[in-house]
Amino acid sequence: MNVKKTYWNDVGKIRYVGHDHLRSELSFHYYNPDEVIHGKKMRDWLRFSVAYWHTFDQRLVDPFGTGTAQRPYDQYSDSMDLALAKVDAAFEFFTKLGVDYFCFHDRDLAPEGDTLRETNRNLDTIIDRIVAYQKTTGIKALWNTSNLFTNPRFVAGAATSPYADIYAYSAAQLKHSLEIGKRVGAENYVFWGGREGYESLWNTDLKKEQEHAAKFFHLAKDYAREIGFTAQMLLEPKPKEPTTHQYDFDAATTIAFMKEYDLENDFKLNLEGNHANLAGHTYQHEIRVAREAGLLGSLDANQGDKLIGWDIDEYPSNLYETTAAMYEVIENGSIGPRGGLNFDAKPRRSSYKPNDLFYGHIVGMDSFAAGLRVAAKMKEDGFLDDILSDRYRSYTSGIGAAIENGKADFKSLEDYIIDKPQSELIAATHSDHLEKIKDTINHYIIDTLSKS
Amino acid sequence: MNVKKTYWNDVGKIRYVGHDHLRSELSFHYYNPDEVIHGKKMRDWLRFSVAYWHTFDQRLVDPFGTGTAQRPYDQYSDSMDLALAKVDAAFEFFTKLGVDYFCFHDRDLAPEGDTLRETNRNLDTIIDRIVAYQKTTGIKALWNTSNLFTNPRFVAGAATSPYADIYAYSAAQLKHSLEIGKRVGAENYVFWGGREGYESLWNTDLKKEQEHAAKFFHLAKDYAREIGFTAQMLLEPKPKEPTTHQYDFDAATTIAFMKEYDLENDFKLNLEGNHANLAGHTYQHEIRVAREAGLLGSLDANQGDKLIGWDIDEYPSNLYETTAAMYEVIENGSIGPRGGLNFDAKPRRSSYKPNDLFYGHIVGMDSFAAGLRVAAKMKEDGFLDDILSDRYRSYTSGIGAAIENGKADFKSLEDYIIDKPQSELIAATHSDHLEKIKDTINHYIIDTLSKS
Amino acid sequence: MNVKKTYWNDVGKIRYVGHDHLRSELSFHYYNPDEVIHGKKMRDWLRFSVAYWHTFDQRLVDPFGTGTAQRPYDQYSDSMDLALAKVDAAFEFFTKLGVDYFCFHDRDLAPEGDTLRETNRNLDTIIDRIVAYQKTTGIKALWNTSNLFTNPRFVAGAATSPYADIYAYSAAQLKHSLEIGKRVGAENYVFWGGREGYESLWNTDLKKEQEHAAKFFHLAKDYAREIGFTAQMLLEPKPKEPTTHQYDFDAATTIAFMKEYDLENDFKLNLEGNHANLAGHTYQHEIRVAREAGLLGSLDANQGDKLIGWDIDEYPSNLYETTAAMYEVIENGSIGPRGGLNFDAKPRRSSYKPNDLFYGHIVGMDSFAAGLRVAAKMKEDGFLDDILSDRYRSYTSGIGAAIENGKADFKSLEDYIIDKPQSELIAATHSDHLEKIKDTINHYIIDTLSKS
Amino acid sequence: MNVKKTYWNDVGKIRYVGHDHLRSELSFHYYNPDEVIHGKKMRDWLRFSVAYWHTFDQRLVDPFGTGTAQRPYDQYSDSMDLALAKVDAAFEFFTKLGVDYFCFHDRDLAPEGDTLRETNRNLDTIIDRIVAYQKTTGIKALWNTSNLFTNPRFVAGAATSPYADIYAYSAAQLKHSLEIGKRVGAENYVFWGGREGYESLWNTDLKKEQEHAAKFFHLAKDYAREIGFTAQMLLEPKPKEPTTHQYDFDAATTIAFMKEYDLENDFKLNLEGNHANLAGHTYQHEIRVAREAGLLGSLDANQGDKLIGWDIDEYPSNLYETTAAMYEVIENGSIGPRGGLNFDAKPRRSSYKPNDLFYGHIVGMDSFAAGLRVAAKMKEDGFLDDILSDRYRSYTSGIGAAIENGKADFKSLEDYIIDKPQSELIAATHSDHLEKIKDTINHYIIDTLSKS
Repeated sequence: MNVKKTYWNDVGKIRYVGHDHLRSELSFHYYNPDEVIHGKKMRDWLRFSVAYWHTFDQRLVDPFGTGTAQRPYDQYSDSMDLALAKVDAAFEFFTKLGVDYFCFHDRDLAPEGDTLRETNRNLDTIIDRIVAYQKTTGIKALWNTSNLFTNPRFVAGAATSPYADIYAYSAAQLKHSLEIGKRVGAENYVFWGGREGYESLWNTDLKKEQEHAAKFFHLAKDYAREIGFTAQMLLEPKPKEPTTHQYDFDAATTIAFMKEYDLENDFKLNLEGNHANLAGHTYQHEIRVAREAGLLGSLDANQGDKLIGWDIDEYPSNLYETTAAMYEVIENGSIGPRGGLNFDAKPRRSSYKPNDLFYGHIVGMDSFAAGLRVAAKMKEDGFLDDILSDRYRSYTSGIGAAIENGKADFKSLEDYIIDKPQSELIAATHSDHLEKIKDTINHYIIDTLSKS
Repeated sequence: MNVKKTYWNDVGKIRYVGHDHLRSELSFHYYNPDEVIHGKKMRDWLRFSVAYWHTFDQRLVDPFGTGTAQRPYDQYSDSMDLALAKVDAAFEFFTKLGVDYFCFHDRDLAPEGDTLRETNRNLDTIIDRIVAYQKTTGIKALWNTSNLFTNPRFVAGAATSPYADIYAYSAAQLKHSLEIGKRVGAENYVFWGGREGYESLWNTDLKKEQEHAAKFFHLAKDYAREIGFTAQMLLEPKPKEPTTHQYDFDAATTIAFMKEYDLENDFKLNLEGNHANLAGHTYQHEIRVAREAGLLGSLDANQGDKLIGWDIDEYPSNLYETTAAMYEVIENGSIGPRGGLNFDAKPRRSSYKPNDLFYGHIVGMDSFAAGLRVAAKMKEDGFLDDILSDRYRSYTSGIGAAIENGKADFKSLEDYIIDKPQSELIAATHSDHLEKIKDTINHYIIDTLSKS
Repeated sequence: MNVKKTYWNDVGKIRYVGHDHLRSELSFHYYNPDEVIHGKKMRDWLRFSVAYWHTFDQRLVDPFGTGTAQRPYDQYSDSMDLALAKVDAAFEFFTKLGVDYFCFHDRDLAPEGDTLRETNRNLDTIIDRIVAYQKTTGIKALWNTSNLFTNPRFVAGAATSPYADIYAYSAAQLKHSLEIGKRVGAENYVFWGGREGYESLWNTDLKKEQEHAAKFFHLAKDYAREIGFTAQMLLEPKPKEPTTHQYDFDAATTIAFMKEYDLENDFKLNLEGNHANLAGHTYQHEIRVAREAGLLGSLDANQGDKLIGWDIDEYPSNLYETTAAMYEVIENGSIGPRGGLNFDAKPRRSSYKPNDLFYGHIVGMDSFAAGLRVAAKMKEDGFLDDILSDRYRSYTSGIGAAIENGKADFKSLEDYIIDKPQSELIAATHSDHLEKIKDTINHYIIDTLSKS
Repeated sequence: MNVKKTYWNDVGKIRYVGHDHLRSELSFHYYNPDEVIHGKKMRDWLRFSVAYWHTFDQRLVDPFGTGTAQRPYDQYSDSMDLALAKVDAAFEFFTKLGVDYFCFHDRDLAPEGDTLRETNRNLDTIIDRIVAYQKTTGIKALWNTSNLFTNPRFVAGAATSPYADIYAYSAAQLKHSLEIGKRVGAENYVFWGGREGYESLWNTDLKKEQEHAAKFFHLAKDYAREIGFTAQMLLEPKPKEPTTHQYDFDAATTIAFMKEYDLENDFKLNLEGNHANLAGHTYQHEIRVAREAGLLGSLDANQGDKLIGWDIDEYPSNLYETTAAMYEVIENGSIGPRGGLNFDAKPRRSSYKPNDLFYGHIVGMDSFAAGLRVAAKMKEDGFLDDILSDRYRSYTSGIGAAIENGKADFKSLEDYIIDKPQSELIAATHSDHLEKIKDTINHYIIDTLSKS
């Protein structure tokens, strides 16, 4: 094959048309890449990335059905021809959509051979073409990663596999991923431990497996440094699925692990909305936890359905959630040191046409762009900062300042309070008027977006 | 006592100011009662009602804390004085808020005596004052109900109690509730079976208990008819809490029960958002199920947190949910034969000041008013009607029409299809472009509300 | 191919060895097929069935991994050769395991062709071999069903597809399934509507879809009767997965549907443990609801993990759940008119060897056999009957009897109770001592099984 | 008052009668305190403790009902009389039940006064009587704690309150708790942060609040050391309820917090079964996580219902869960440095008689005693140890040993594996036969307990 062709022939460059076009097709209503919001261009706040796996590989299967996806490169039957065609289709897609970044697993790109050596050879061929496209388009790799969960050899994990050969294989596979990460100039390198967890505690040596994982991360980081691959290393939490319990359950669990094994200086977190929900958290919570720990690395942008107990990876569309996420990002100064918003999202199985990939990314990009606009307005108005400074003001003087400054101890605090009657204690607290806050957020959403 | 006084002295009549006032205090931004939307005044679509229990009785306790509520009538220590003061405060609240309806349990209003006769006497005294207020204010009772779950006597249910005396007591208590329902002109009468369910199946005769409940509903309806109380009778589903499993689990379960026991001609459903979520459903789903069955009666307006497993009864603020609910209402022509939106909602325990009751109702009323505006616009544009008629159009002619008209059977359908190749079958299906629909709904929300 | 061979060569006939062999391999400890328990042979109470799909087709894939299964017939590459080999392997498996029944979807057995005519031809070839085996082994079909969810043509449902051609195809496919059901002498015919539900209510005409489904069930029943296929028809509830919401959400919902569309005389329910949990219910609850409605048809035996939100279909091993299920069965007199226990269960992906299929069925069969033994003992001792008759005894005389006999109304009940003081009302209730009941159930499990 | 009397007059000392008495009343079937199991007396493995709050204070209220509890000291109306009577009743209860420990919050024991000084005085009076009883009975305090969540002053937290006076009050209240802990010789001191979390992230400075909490823990520890109170300090995780999100979400989250704030040398964890479930974990998981971190301190013994989303605190009765918990304890050598099994459990609201408190504790104690017996047998047989050593044996030599010893890096691992074909890699993994493990655990439960 090798005759490059175009694949998305009925789609032109997606353009910003403003919010005043109710049902206009294939255009942005809130994402205006070069518009400056709160001191930075939208594209620089958001750093949108397309996920290769969901966008170009995903056949829209589910546990009860084979794939429904119709893709413009479906005619290729040879696996390498298909892999090359997908590269062409991908860069055309990135360009028309107007994103600056993409993300990929090694196995998204090229088929496996019988040995890792053969597999690496296949992959290198595809990377050649990707690097060539990067030069002509300027499109960058936000991050790459290694698929250490799909193949049956990873049935019981990769870095936490009870089988040493599989650990060795995982290390070798990841080694090559670091090498191609360097070739494509990936800004981050992500570890999502799809099988790093357990099916049953009865047959699992949890501590040994976590030690193996920690060692693996150290070896990975060491090799990356050795070859001069300077990407930010990221761990991605998920609580369960495919395993019964995954070690990187949520942000806090992963931080505990990083601290235990001396990883917190070299690794940060890549956080996902749907994973947060599966762990019983909001996306905002996970971002806040990482941000306050100084460990926010990057974001996987998607949306779950909280009434559904598995990972559905919907394109984000809920403006409450995107506003909350972008408020945390603004407070953080950026998504992370080199972070971006990668759409780890796919269409519904019932939404299977080629152009549904554009619709999905548009609703996702516009929803985060809208969230950025609303969050920036709330920040600039000092809406939430005022609430916070008012709420905690008792710590700025008197006994509160003594507490803050380390000048109080249990005895001095007892002296201060022991004779205060109940009525004074109640008077020291204040209603937080949460209903009013929610009402005001609704107004911010409508008002800001209607004026954008 | 009996010297009527006013309680909400720092609050005036809440007025509509339009959406262009970002942070204005204690006013409506979307609810303009006499504005005509889609052929009817907003007040007639929405028929807002204040819930007596959450608004005037609720002390904001939770399983780990005593009440935090501060209310303007807290000075009364005599229980009947307090009950009378609450009536005064309630009608002042209704009037300032601008609602036309209220709802109550019998036990919300007056304290119990040692016998039912004494209890009824207390209650009648309070009803006298309520009726007097109704005459001067024109404020109506959307529905009343009987509290058959709080007192320890209902420990194992009321109509489903294993103890015949408790069944008898419940009947007698409800009898009086029907009588006061008639006195206050309640438009509906609601049954929420707070303890009608089981803690354990091991000691429960489920069939006997359901038969008892069905008989109880028939007796209630018969007595209401006998005394000329013509309210629409309503059952309110909830899946669990306080019991492990409640018989009226959700709309479909309750419909099955109504059909089994010949209740579907005299009873309809009162549906609540938070209850829907606890049953694993959306509010829209429950309303749709009732609507399609012709059994939509009335709505309890509140909001859950889908990451929380108990009934939190937040004031509604989520515009996606209010838009979906109001779309179903528009399709139904009204909320129900005599239905309204009753705020079965309370402030957070941390939001305990008197005025938080106004903030809460305002965010709730404005959110539903906004939802009505958006839903009406989508309906008038034919946005979803077009999608539906397009999606099901294959049933309007050819083999589809034969199916609809009952002219097809398995043999004729086999003849029609048996030699069609796979490709033609796939071509008979269509992508539903769900991501585009979600994107358009976002635009409808912003666009409609920014122009309201 | 066609040279029949044996596949499970290292496994002999599985035999009952009694419970006194702690870690004996590949034998039954509680299932003794011809032992009489509570008046019937164990095999007749339990009527165990192997599910063809999970046992012979399932490759142990999950959303993040390809299949790990190692099966003794993996060497066949031609799809019809493989299909025939699986029949051989299946009947050898049934015989060695000692089950009397199996269940299957049409598509479990044979590959699809390009048209339904070709597909039917493939299937008929396989059915020929199955029928031949049935004659020599005496093994029967508990039920068959039609797979109307895997192929992309069913992307939006089968009987509820918005596309008439798909409805027609589904009817024609099912017609042939009824014909093969007759050929194999299936005792039941099951409908599980894997895609009969919705992804989004926004684009779904719920009522039209349910009417289509109801018509489809009527047409199916009519055709079955026409060809003399007398199987009991069964609907199988599941709340969600693969769709966001499935119409046959749970037993009560399905009963409501059956009553609405006049199906309750010809259809009963097939209930599954994991589906019950996904709907927020226990398995016992679902069986009880069906039993009390006279609609218990058959049981799918498996087990979920209540901390996991998707359908994992584990082999049953929890003795509390099997005891509860079998207690309901004993109360019902049998599983259902022609029902059995079909293992809709599969090994974990990490448990992928051929013999794991035997281990899985053994733990499942032994757990249900143990449950039967415990439940029978509790029944024979009158343990729970005594609790129930004691608990509801106030309905056997006096006011309770009047309530039962329809001789009480609200006025007579009020007369009876209106002057009773609180203390008498409380005294009319009784503690249910639930903790003692749980303790006794533990004793029944240990005591019964240690003596079996 | 002060005339001591007895309260549980119809109950004698609860005795061990062995498992062969199917329905014997008020006796132990598995708990034989002085029997040696796996090298230690049962009482020393289990160190059972009664929780003062659930057992003597709990009125069996729920969010929809007032208390149903009937207690033998209900006649006292004066709050101090009642408090003293409860002490008498408590020590009689401990003695008859045969536990060696109890646990309490400060506010369980005595009523509050208007100032902390008055409150402390009330409490000291009660402590005097407790200390006297301890001397005569030998019953010890497993731990005490401070109730910093019930009173409205803690509406927004205690150590994390935004209001400095409340922080001061909390410190002073806790100071006194440490003093009484010393007086009663408490072996541990527990912090459960009932309100240490947030209702909404929008108005919460998460980092500031966590810093305040950390400082508070340090001050508490410093003061305890200062007064010579040498109890082990324990943090108790819970994910939510009463707050939307609590900071000590689960074991891993709390460990992350302890490491961040330098608390892991002075604090360990107190873990609860129901809390584990609410966080999406099994109890075994939480114990394992703490054990592997060397931070297992003590256990709260109760049981949740995984289909219910709130904290129901049932008495433990599930033998699978108690076996799993006790297996972890055996592996740990003990529950923790000074840990025990405290029954943080209450009867159902429908189980309200005085003796239900005995039934509840008996099912709980017997279930854990049974779990200990089964776990010990599995340990002594090497059942799970064999599985583990077999499963991880590839790390004991060759490449696996190199990985363990730090002698492998990505390059050496690549060299080792790069030319191995797929088939060899698959052959390096092994089925884990999980179904067989589950089957064997069932056999262990039946077999061990029937021989105990």
